[in-house]
Amino acid sequence: MANERIWTAGLLVIGDEILSGRTQDKNISQVALWLNLQGIRLAEVRVVPDVTDAIVEAVNALRRRNDYLFTTGGIGPTHDDITVDAIAEAIGVPVIIHPRARAALEGYYQSRGGLTEARMRMARVPEGAELIENSMSGAPGIRHGNIFILAGVPHIAGLMLEALSGKLEGGRPLISRVVGCWVPESEVADMLASIERAFEGCQIGSYPFFRDGRVGANFVIRSTDAERLDACAAALIAALHAAGREGVIDGI
Amino acid sequence: MANERIWTAGLLVIGDEILSGRTQDKNISQVALWLNLQGIRLAEVRVVPDVTDAIVEAVNALRRRNDYLFTTGGIGPTHDDITVDAIAEAIGVPVIIHPRARAALEGYYQSRGGLTEARMRMARVPEGAELIENSMSGAPGIRHGNIFILAGVPHIAGLMLEALSGKLEGGRPLISRVVGCWVPESEVADMLASIERAFEGCQIGSYPFFRDGRVGANFVIRSTDAERLDACAAALIAALHAAGREGVIDGI
Repeated sequence: MANERIWTAGLLVIGDEILSGRTQDKNISQVALWLNLQGIRLAEVRVVPDVTDAIVEAVNALRRRNDYLFTTGGIGPTHDDITVDAIAEAIGVPVIIHPRARAALEGYYQSRGGLTEARMRMARVPEGAELIENSMSGAPGIRHGNIFILAGVPHIAGLMLEALSGKLEGGRPLISRVVGCWVPESEVADMLASIERAFEGCQIGSYPFFRDGRVGANFVIRSTDAERLDACAAALIAALHAAGREGVIDGI
Repeated sequence: MANERIWTAGLLVIGDEILSGRTQDKNISQVALWLNLQGIRLAEVRVVPDVTDAIVEAVNALRRRNDYLFTTGGIGPTHDDITVDAIAEAIGVPVIIHPRARAALEGYYQSRGGLTEARMRMARVPEGAELIENSMSGAPGIRHGNIFILAGVPHIAGLMLEALSGKLEGGRPLISRVVGCWVPESEVADMLASIERAFEGCQIGSYPFFRDGRVGANFVIRSTDAERLDACAAALIAALHAAGREGVIDGI
């Protein structure tokens, strides 16, 4: 257990629309949940504007200290779509037209007005890249080494993740159990800390809420080991019961 | 216009629950929208786990290159709430008990079982800090210089932002106009780029969508200058019309 290899990923969300608050990001949780299933832990997220220097710096920081880097956004045909150029600059390779991406776009746009220069932008990739399939639109995602360049539109990013499912090396998936309880978290803070200490490999997070005029909290236990997780959840429920509180499996 | 001072903020979202995908973050857009109204631009966001070293590194990176740093999460009473300690370490000051925070918590918990050691954790601040009021719970937000430490629960973070409204120095608010059009963005990519070039101080973002089996896009124009913004939106609508497309103010 203690020496188990942990695979990590960084996520870079690229887009002025997230930083302006206009668009509510949905890719962080989508990518995080998908990574969990692949046995890869999302270690850090950064959100940067459509500015080359900001993208280059974040790409280099995140790819060097994680097994994988995912990016979302900025791979469309318009002037604010600069992700491919910035990533090519970060890794020090030229941008080329990918023949298969070009062919896919030609097919897609045959009945939609033809492949213009702007549309051809979507066939541009950092040299050495492979494509990530996407059944929804003509524009593919891009893989270059440990970097995965996804669309910003959440359901297209989701299709690209689908195409990658089971293809990345990872460890055991991180799984979780939730114990909910109508208790102020401050009343059971010591209990949570001592149970976490007693179950190595389990982390307990405490997420308070206010609902119907009452306070409660969901305690989320995470581990790669299902047996240990169940034992930890059982210990927490027993401790809550001993304190006169009832814990509910699957949360409140 | 060209020499206008731009005020920026970084945002650090602290919490395993965001990185696990369990919780959909709502603070990024909330903080971004609030900052816009204060005339401050959200320049970068990072999301890090409940790990001291990760928080310290991100705090120092973001506070040094922005006018302001906001953090959300990790200021509750439980063992996973380490934000105050990590920020104190980052700025090199000790953690102390703030007398007014202690008094507020004593009042709040008088009828709720008293002020335990765990609850007292919520009165801990980096030395030199002021409190940010919060009418909802006993636990205050914390201001230390240009760092603003907010709760993770979105509606409590929102109340803390309310308490700060109008109190931070900023520039002119960034405002926007949206022009929607039933057009594939790739068809008008050159038009967008040339209009953006023609209106200095305006940025145009293109956000495509698929709806009812048709493709369209919303073009978001941002500027600190309302007149220029309106002129840019009018020019875009005229150019779309000349290309046989109709643009809709306020978007589709």
